[in-house]
Amino acid sequence: MNTKIKWLRDKMKGLDLQGMIVSNPNNIRYLTGIDAEGVLLITRKENIYITDSRYIEEVQATLTIDDEIIVNNSRDVSQYDYENFFSFCENVGFEEGYITYRTYKNYLQKYKVNNFEETENMIEKQRAIKDEEEIALLQKACTITDDCFSYLCNFIKIGMSEKQIAYEIEKYFLEHGADGLSFETIVASGKNSSKPHAKTTEKHIMAGDPITIDFGCKYKGYCSDMTRTIFAGYVPEKAKKVYDLVLKNQLQTLKDMKEGANIKIFSRNVENDFKLNGYSLVHSLGHGVGLDIHEIPFINGNNDNILKANMVVTDEPGIYLPGEFGVRIEDTVLITKSGCINLTKSEKNYVIVDNA
Amino acid sequence: MNTKIKWLRDKMKGLDLQGMIVSNPNNIRYLTGIDAEGVLLITRKENIYITDSRYIEEVQATLTIDDEIIVNNSRDVSQYDYENFFSFCENVGFEEGYITYRTYKNYLQKYKVNNFEETENMIEKQRAIKDEEEIALLQKACTITDDCFSYLCNFIKIGMSEKQIAYEIEKYFLEHGADGLSFETIVASGKNSSKPHAKTTEKHIMAGDPITIDFGCKYKGYCSDMTRTIFAGYVPEKAKKVYDLVLKNQLQTLKDMKEGANIKIFSRNVENDFKLNGYSLVHSLGHGVGLDIHEIPFINGNNDNILKANMVVTDEPGIYLPGEFGVRIEDTVLITKSGCINLTKSEKNYVIVDNA
Repeated sequence: MNTKIKWLRDKMKGLDLQGMIVSNPNNIRYLTGIDAEGVLLITRKENIYITDSRYIEEVQATLTIDDEIIVNNSRDVSQYDYENFFSFCENVGFEEGYITYRTYKNYLQKYKVNNFEETENMIEKQRAIKDEEEIALLQKACTITDDCFSYLCNFIKIGMSEKQIAYEIEKYFLEHGADGLSFETIVASGKNSSKPHAKTTEKHIMAGDPITIDFGCKYKGYCSDMTRTIFAGYVPEKAKKVYDLVLKNQLQTLKDMKEGANIKIFSRNVENDFKLNGYSLVHSLGHGVGLDIHEIPFINGNNDNILKANMVVTDEPGIYLPGEFGVRIEDTVLITKSGCINLTKSEKNYVIVDNA
Repeated sequence: MNTKIKWLRDKMKGLDLQGMIVSNPNNIRYLTGIDAEGVLLITRKENIYITDSRYIEEVQATLTIDDEIIVNNSRDVSQYDYENFFSFCENVGFEEGYITYRTYKNYLQKYKVNNFEETENMIEKQRAIKDEEEIALLQKACTITDDCFSYLCNFIKIGMSEKQIAYEIEKYFLEHGADGLSFETIVASGKNSSKPHAKTTEKHIMAGDPITIDFGCKYKGYCSDMTRTIFAGYVPEKAKKVYDLVLKNQLQTLKDMKEGANIKIFSRNVENDFKLNGYSLVHSLGHGVGLDIHEIPFINGNNDNILKANMVVTDEPGIYLPGEFGVRIEDTVLITKSGCINLTKSEKNYVIVDNA
């Protein structure tokens, strides 16, 4: 049996769970490598993946005999079969944070299980700790993103539109081996940069504009996430103080991040330093990154958990002055026993583009 | 008040619903134009949108006084506020097909409502009937897609990889005014085309390959969806019979589609004609298209509903011979009182590329 399903079965044993329905496609991809639409049933004796005719050929091609996963076409699964999958299970886990209320009610009807039990992100928590192969894929996604940033530093000129820059990013990713974007690229210049989650617009870059670029790609399913605020032509005086404060806190967080560090404490340090200087941190300091762009752990002042080795997380403080401008600096970082390894290598001091 | 929220309030009145929590972002976008993360509360007297600091500036900029929507920052909403939003409502609707089981339980705790009621895709059903503005956006998305197809017919050459073609499609969309892709582009050639939901691979196009291209873009949020199976160099004899049968049924469905047509009946006609010829229809015949790429109505042999004027749906029969090849032909179509208007104008007879 593949090692990840084996892990899941051991975990279930510990929780006295006799069966489980895995519905989240990224959890299924993590456990099995299958990238399709369907549901994975962990029953007492078998691992069963139910999909439909659109995917059946491809799924069969992905799996090997060692996976020990039986693939069924939903067309061939009767109500009788559904009722029998968990017939000797007293309780069956489900993903209450993924399936809709409607699907929950459908499962109740379909599987006729005595007790459905919430599993509290059991698989997502395990996904937070990356293995060697996953780290290599994340590093590759970050490297493509760094290379794209270097390219952008020469490409961006005053007069270009934000959208034009966003298109160039996507084109770069597609031409350099990425599967696609991790999320919709943000290019926000001048006043637009004052929105923490700005939309990319047709606005043209003007001299003196701060330009916040928040972007990332997927490589074999794994996401990168990076932000830089750069400057067109020159760095306006008013931006320097804010930039320096964001950078100072971004670097301090890199120093704080290591196995055992309490997330709440180092996040609040940033919040407090911003407050001391008359600003505030209006979003999270960071988040885990993997098959999902936002995953466990969530890095903010309310999370009392600690970091663990082989987590991959972002470090992304930002300050936003409504109607004026904003600055955000973000790296993707691998946590280790003694500190962290920054998977994002791009310049973080003032970057000036179109510096004629 | 904006007309779509007015419609919702009238609908709720008819159902004796005194409040509603709208959580699905595309339902919120449809009702309000807001494109962000948050929740829309329809209370007895007010329309309240709760979002967070990342979006607040942008949302405020989107709305006008006529929208009559109060925007709150979640940071400023207390547990006391949550309990008071629906304090005089006996029942409050929620979207059981959108929110997770966990969110449902959170809502119970947060809003302390007496009766939460399922709303059975009330808003999604309304979204199925497009207004003039929506139809214009869908037509624009389809036109960009048609133009891309014309471009591809000259661009594609024997020896190119499937991925290279998919990249070119994305580049074309980005350079021609689209917001992005409606879904991950499928380019499946030769044997790969035998998978109804194939992944785009590094496989190179060879002479005689059927190439199934399933692609679409978003324009101001609205999706297009189109598929053609074209041929590299020449049309292999074995493919002709299958192609002709798929095309015959695609055209027959276009004739059948009009206001009042029973979905089950015309879908089963295709299923039966395929069976008569020794094949089968392994996926749906089509689906609604709008802000979501797959939405109501779902066009298949189990749906006993009728088509209505101003629905926009796909017509996409396909036949797949495992290990050999497949053919799918898909248009996006506007239903009218007397028939339908095909928003997709591209050639449907044999298209041969790199026909040196």
